[in-house]
Amino acid sequence: MIEKDGGKDQESVLTVGDTKEMRAVVLAGFGGLNKLRVTKKAMPEPLEGEVKIRVKACGLNFLDLMVRQGNIDNPPKTPLVPGFECSGIVEALGENTKGSEIGDRVMAFVNYNAWAEVVCTPLEFVYKIPDDMTFPEAAAFSMNFVAAYMMLFEVANLREGMSVLVHSAGGGMGQAVAQLCSTVPNVTVFGTASPFKHEAIKDSVTHLFDRNVDYVQEVKKISPEGVDIVLDCLCGENTGKGLGLLKPLGTYILYGSSNMVTGETKSFFSLAKSWWQVEKVNPIKLYDENKVIAGFSLLNLLFKQGRSSLVKIVVDKLISLYNARKIKPLVDSLWALEEVKEAMQRIHDRGNIGKLILDVEKSPTPLMANDSTETSEAGEEEEDHEGDTDNKERMPFIQ
Amino acid sequence: MIEKDGGKDQESVLTVGDTKEMRAVVLAGFGGLNKLRVTKKAMPEPLEGEVKIRVKACGLNFLDLMVRQGNIDNPPKTPLVPGFECSGIVEALGENTKGSEIGDRVMAFVNYNAWAEVVCTPLEFVYKIPDDMTFPEAAAFSMNFVAAYMMLFEVANLREGMSVLVHSAGGGMGQAVAQLCSTVPNVTVFGTASPFKHEAIKDSVTHLFDRNVDYVQEVKKISPEGVDIVLDCLCGENTGKGLGLLKPLGTYILYGSSNMVTGETKSFFSLAKSWWQVEKVNPIKLYDENKVIAGFSLLNLLFKQGRSSLVKIVVDKLISLYNARKIKPLVDSLWALEEVKEAMQRIHDRGNIGKLILDVEKSPTPLMANDSTETSEAGEEEEDHEGDTDNKERMPFIQ
Repeated sequence: MIEKDGGKDQESVLTVGDTKEMRAVVLAGFGGLNKLRVTKKAMPEPLEGEVKIRVKACGLNFLDLMVRQGNIDNPPKTPLVPGFECSGIVEALGENTKGSEIGDRVMAFVNYNAWAEVVCTPLEFVYKIPDDMTFPEAAAFSMNFVAAYMMLFEVANLREGMSVLVHSAGGGMGQAVAQLCSTVPNVTVFGTASPFKHEAIKDSVTHLFDRNVDYVQEVKKISPEGVDIVLDCLCGENTGKGLGLLKPLGTYILYGSSNMVTGETKSFFSLAKSWWQVEKVNPIKLYDENKVIAGFSLLNLLFKQGRSSLVKIVVDKLISLYNARKIKPLVDSLWALEEVKEAMQRIHDRGNIGKLILDVEKSPTPLMANDSTETSEAGEEEEDHEGDTDNKERMPFIQ
Repeated sequence: MIEKDGGKDQESVLTVGDTKEMRAVVLAGFGGLNKLRVTKKAMPEPLEGEVKIRVKACGLNFLDLMVRQGNIDNPPKTPLVPGFECSGIVEALGENTKGSEIGDRVMAFVNYNAWAEVVCTPLEFVYKIPDDMTFPEAAAFSMNFVAAYMMLFEVANLREGMSVLVHSAGGGMGQAVAQLCSTVPNVTVFGTASPFKHEAIKDSVTHLFDRNVDYVQEVKKISPEGVDIVLDCLCGENTGKGLGLLKPLGTYILYGSSNMVTGETKSFFSLAKSWWQVEKVNPIKLYDENKVIAGFSLLNLLFKQGRSSLVKIVVDKLISLYNARKIKPLVDSLWALEEVKEAMQRIHDRGNIGKLILDVEKSPTPLMANDSTETSEAGEEEEDHEGDTDNKERMPFIQ
């Protein structure tokens, strides 16, 4: 039943024609890249209300790096299959699962387990995609565009003439924010990004700053009054700076990865230190200055707070915008499951422009093929490199 | 030029026919009711860009009690004339003041000095009122309805099907909130108020609770998930309870009087103690729970943050709603300037249903007339009563 185009790598060979098993990326324990491998797992079957999806593409987010490191609140037990979003084709339906059909092209949220050939997830997290949306686009769409839309329009009430500051403007979320801002007349987008990305994304952002400069000064030079909306993913930024940049009635939104907890701060992950050093906010100051502070976590909204019906409405609106050619996910690069380490390293190095996608049917590039993920234990070396930002020469050629 | 209808009281006699002077309520120093008196002041004349208004009615707010007590941040020097809103007729214009005409019926914000026969304020704070809006209605309109509108629609984005919790639902602000909620389909309003007000306001509030019961429990009995918007004037309430009642994506708004500072907590004003005991909020908690916290101060927005153009747009929308008979300020009672102490006592005792108005042309009722405000120093006794809630028998009959 399972059709694979080639299956040159060792793992895929194991699964061809074997419907009882599937390939998946497994995180053996929290830590460095060496904790990741591709292995066989039992084929999941849909429970009542669930949809079984033959996965074509998966989204890779900064959050996944934090999960790998165990830098989240109440981390699940390992081993686990990471990943929260995917696209693919509906292969089977659990009992009492009405509203989806076998063969539907869909994108879906999954509470872990997305990085696999097959996933099962409740119907409420599954959305049909337009015929002309590719699977990589769909996998790049769900998390970033839904979160960006809800922050801009549900939490912050973005309207004509307003201004928005977004960090990592070249990333998947940054590009989603920029594109959605362009759907409202006369919105000014301030963005920070590494200088090498500026040429590629300059059309989507009104004012681009080097991520290493003092963006507060730069914004104030252009708009002394500040901005209406600050989106802060808290990867090294801080609440006080963001709040200070707000105009009266402005909204600061803290979004990002997950509930980081105090604990490990080694190497690269010290960038996320402000997750637990974030200053508390005095409501009286908000009153005095007429300001708004919000937190936004799409995954909590979906999986802890039961707001899937709200998200479904947002997905419908976003698909309308996609069909009207007003938004289009920007895919940085496609990676085989076996290349997940290299893909993670690329996010870590901030090398991406747009979204990184795991392409389930892709074979590893020759450069990667000699690093057999099932048996390699060379991860300790890679881990030592974390925190470096000048090791791009280790990256494979990007498609 | 000044026409008074009667002028039986001592103060008004002094000003009749005298265009160099006018009557005003003066706060001699911060403290109890005895610090207030009606006296003559030099007639103000409009500076460039200002409008001179012959005042007909003034709004009395809880904030004015806090000002009297000196319980505000950076209090101005005394003696001062209190009051932040009034209505009346344009009597003169300063140089380069285009957009208003002599004879216009207007309502206006003033940065203090509203409780007088004549005020001057910049044109940007002056709004024409509909022909059929009475002056007391206009004085009851500006502060409460503008603040309620901006909180519900600019800060919190109230939409169909949402729910709102408002404290002091029987007060001027509470009634403005309830009426504005009724302009949106299917909005549920939870309100707290003293039991004796319930009959009078029950049509404007979906679920009314005694202000002395645990409203958190009562709301959760009806809506276990909580509410979408909590408006908290922080007169004895607390941020944690309000935040705890929010649904995911809900908004908590702290509004109210002014920037209370640590210091005097004597008697009644200890009710406002939470102004400086308010818990700080951890943004990570907001992130985890998908919640929004905002502060709103209309006076800061107008007088410190230069947002009068934004407020003007809101006033236009509100006047449209008034003309469409969708909202109508609820006036509790009218008081002569000389009766300001009694009016303040009524707010203090939470006796009002709707807004208290100082009617500049009203003569004091006979019951009040023997308490000559110019010479009385009996305030110490009244001050000792502050904090009591059972002294309603001291109140005059309410119109």
